[in-house]
Amino acid sequence: MADDARSIVTLTTDFGASDPYVAAMKGVMLSINPHLTIVDVSHDVRPQQVRQAAFITQCAWPFFPPRAVHVAVVDPGVGTERLALVLETPRGLFVGPDNGVLSAALSEDVREGVAGGERIALPPGYRAYAISNRALMHEPVSATFHGRDVFAPAAAHLARGHPFPQVGPLVDDPVRPLLPRARPEPGPAVRGRVMWVDRFGNLITNVDAAALTALGEQDGAALVVDVGGRPPAPVVSHYGAVAAGEVAAVVGSSGHLELFANQGSAAEILGAGTGSPVRVRPGMRSPGPAQAPGARTRR
Amino acid sequence: MADDARSIVTLTTDFGASDPYVAAMKGVMLSINPHLTIVDVSHDVRPQQVRQAAFITQCAWPFFPPRAVHVAVVDPGVGTERLALVLETPRGLFVGPDNGVLSAALSEDVREGVAGGERIALPPGYRAYAISNRALMHEPVSATFHGRDVFAPAAAHLARGHPFPQVGPLVDDPVRPLLPRARPEPGPAVRGRVMWVDRFGNLITNVDAAALTALGEQDGAALVVDVGGRPPAPVVSHYGAVAAGEVAAVVGSSGHLELFANQGSAAEILGAGTGSPVRVRPGMRSPGPAQAPGARTRR
Amino acid sequence: MADDARSIVTLTTDFGASDPYVAAMKGVMLSINPHLTIVDVSHDVRPQQVRQAAFITQCAWPFFPPRAVHVAVVDPGVGTERLALVLETPRGLFVGPDNGVLSAALSEDVREGVAGGERIALPPGYRAYAISNRALMHEPVSATFHGRDVFAPAAAHLARGHPFPQVGPLVDDPVRPLLPRARPEPGPAVRGRVMWVDRFGNLITNVDAAALTALGEQDGAALVVDVGGRPPAPVVSHYGAVAAGEVAAVVGSSGHLELFANQGSAAEILGAGTGSPVRVRPGMRSPGPAQAPGARTRR
Repeated sequence: MADDARSIVTLTTDFGASDPYVAAMKGVMLSINPHLTIVDVSHDVRPQQVRQAAFITQCAWPFFPPRAVHVAVVDPGVGTERLALVLETPRGLFVGPDNGVLSAALSEDVREGVAGGERIALPPGYRAYAISNRALMHEPVSATFHGRDVFAPAAAHLARGHPFPQVGPLVDDPVRPLLPRARPEPGPAVRGRVMWVDRFGNLITNVDAAALTALGEQDGAALVVDVGGRPPAPVVSHYGAVAAGEVAAVVGSSGHLELFANQGSAAEILGAGTGSPVRVRPGMRSPGPAQAPGARTRR
Repeated sequence: MADDARSIVTLTTDFGASDPYVAAMKGVMLSINPHLTIVDVSHDVRPQQVRQAAFITQCAWPFFPPRAVHVAVVDPGVGTERLALVLETPRGLFVGPDNGVLSAALSEDVREGVAGGERIALPPGYRAYAISNRALMHEPVSATFHGRDVFAPAAAHLARGHPFPQVGPLVDDPVRPLLPRARPEPGPAVRGRVMWVDRFGNLITNVDAAALTALGEQDGAALVVDVGGRPPAPVVSHYGAVAAGEVAAVVGSSGHLELFANQGSAAEILGAGTGSPVRVRPGMRSPGPAQAPGARTRR
Repeated sequence: MADDARSIVTLTTDFGASDPYVAAMKGVMLSINPHLTIVDVSHDVRPQQVRQAAFITQCAWPFFPPRAVHVAVVDPGVGTERLALVLETPRGLFVGPDNGVLSAALSEDVREGVAGGERIALPPGYRAYAISNRALMHEPVSATFHGRDVFAPAAAHLARGHPFPQVGPLVDDPVRPLLPRARPEPGPAVRGRVMWVDRFGNLITNVDAAALTALGEQDGAALVVDVGGRPPAPVVSHYGAVAAGEVAAVVGSSGHLELFANQGSAAEILGAGTGSPVRVRPGMRSPGPAQAPGARTRR
């Protein structure tokens, strides 16, 4: 165990937790490195939804030690010519197919630097490698399960710590950014979309706190969100700020604006889901407190 | 790793296993203490059902080493003034909001000592602390996710073992007991309720083995359970004691009376669920063996 | 920690991941052996489906280190006289009830050796023991949860490594083979059945690669599969070999033939599921390329 802090591997896949696939990945990894700590982020990404996997990975990895290895495998192209990548960053290693899922590792500023093109140059401190060293693979490599045969063993070898294993050649332009950034638009407003619906029916959007600040409002309560053709939802500071069953928005724990219903499901009430567009804008300022604090309890 | 036996943390939440929330908690804990063993009890508590979380925690913690740290986070009051607690007991440490979820740590006898009041004095050997030491938190502390920012890091610090970290001030009357105890009533009988429906459709009640004994019956088979307006279900000694599809009751693995259907779902057959009342009483004694053992196989 | 490589325990059960049962098993194991690495294979075996549990275990265990301990508990006979077994093999230890679930540990060749009888002689290098040593159990042993009270503690003790603990007496004829082998039939053809439906709707069969080879076809593409009264599905080399929505078959990652629909659910399209019969046979050879590669994209 050369390096404890690095001996953590996280897994984000669309393999589900009921099938034996994730266990097979873990068996391969523990065969290489029995001291690994393996953490499941989620295996319930909707099948083949690369963008969801990238978003979920992005919500979890910042809370891990900086040298953890994050594996994200949603891989509709398995068995085709797409590359298998390791992305080395200042905040951890990322392993997965070259289909954009690893854009989870890039800050929004880096992704923002991409203008129009489908592939990007990596910023300083980031290096990508194509996994081509067969010694890092589980043989025989199947045509259908590179999660087990390519990505999991590469992660386990990487998690052994120094020296960095010979993965394969550097790749210059690896990651197509899949995570759309919310965009300012006239009004002023910010236009974004729903990226994930959680267990509570909260709609997590790609609008981050910085975008709200950029709207020029220091007072978050004065902003509202248009979604699903419903009355605008106020941006508030915490879940308890609206009455039971009412929909509002809050900057959630991952730093993104999320729509919620206090003690209810915003997804159900709004009829919205992953991909639904949202628009954040300053709300109307009423001449006075049309709705006193006590008014809420009368409903 | 000062103390192996303490380096176990269990987690019971309503966060689900599909979303990145639990992984974020684990990342925060492993950043503090990379040697932790983290065990998921359940993340499928019904959203915001504090009582379910307390019951489930109570079913699991007795099987862990006495110095494990048990985190139970179902926290509808997150972002409000409710306290965050550490409860030190002779059988482990418990961490969670002060909404009664930690009553899982108290024996039924202790909870029984409470007469009418909503808050209780802790028995000897138990101490509660309000978590107020910011050095034990993950900064910045969000308004919506104290599971990650307050409870998880406190648990990881506590699991490091001695010395017991400076958590915050002692709290005298912390835990509102949320787990209702089954009550004797004339007849004689014991009245209780269903606390949990498991995957098999078994209905787990709050009637424990001691309450059955108190009914004055040494012969468990002579007791029956009234539930859901159906014919009384006999109390038997094991699942196989009734024919396929029949409903009966057994003292289950957690020490509570549970209703089951052999090779079926008692919940479906009885139309009962969490919160359903049950009543245990001596059954009618028939003059002779009206139903011979072989009779069952004729159905 | 006498032996790292053995300190891995895998779990396959029908207990679900929402209930506290699996956590109780883990608590018992960690109380015995705090250094264990415990890996969940699946807890979503359909309740009491022993055959499913055997198949799922078989799909996972070959990827673990050779001295891991594999626990498979689907136990409709709990509380009856059925034996609790440890099966020692050259590739790992297996722990579970004597209801056939441990046939997951036997190669198809071994199972094939059984002619008609319900019980088998173990091949050289395999030994079975009945767990009877109470010192290896969690007391008191309940009537309903041997997963926690018998199988989990035995596994934890076994995973401590040498010396092999005194489990109980040798058993000569322990394992009824539950996993049916696909059979050749005139035509020629191979007749098998669907053993598992995974999250993607793939139908995993018990037809393995060797059976395909035995059909006398070196060119896998010339084989087809009859299932569910639908047009025969071609056997191809990878998921991408057919157009979106089309059904085909591939030798999947566990070495078994599986039916899939590219970007869809074969289970839904075929209306087939666990237990459905399949028949693999040489396809018709057309006189020329009736279907050019490009034709597919026109549909």
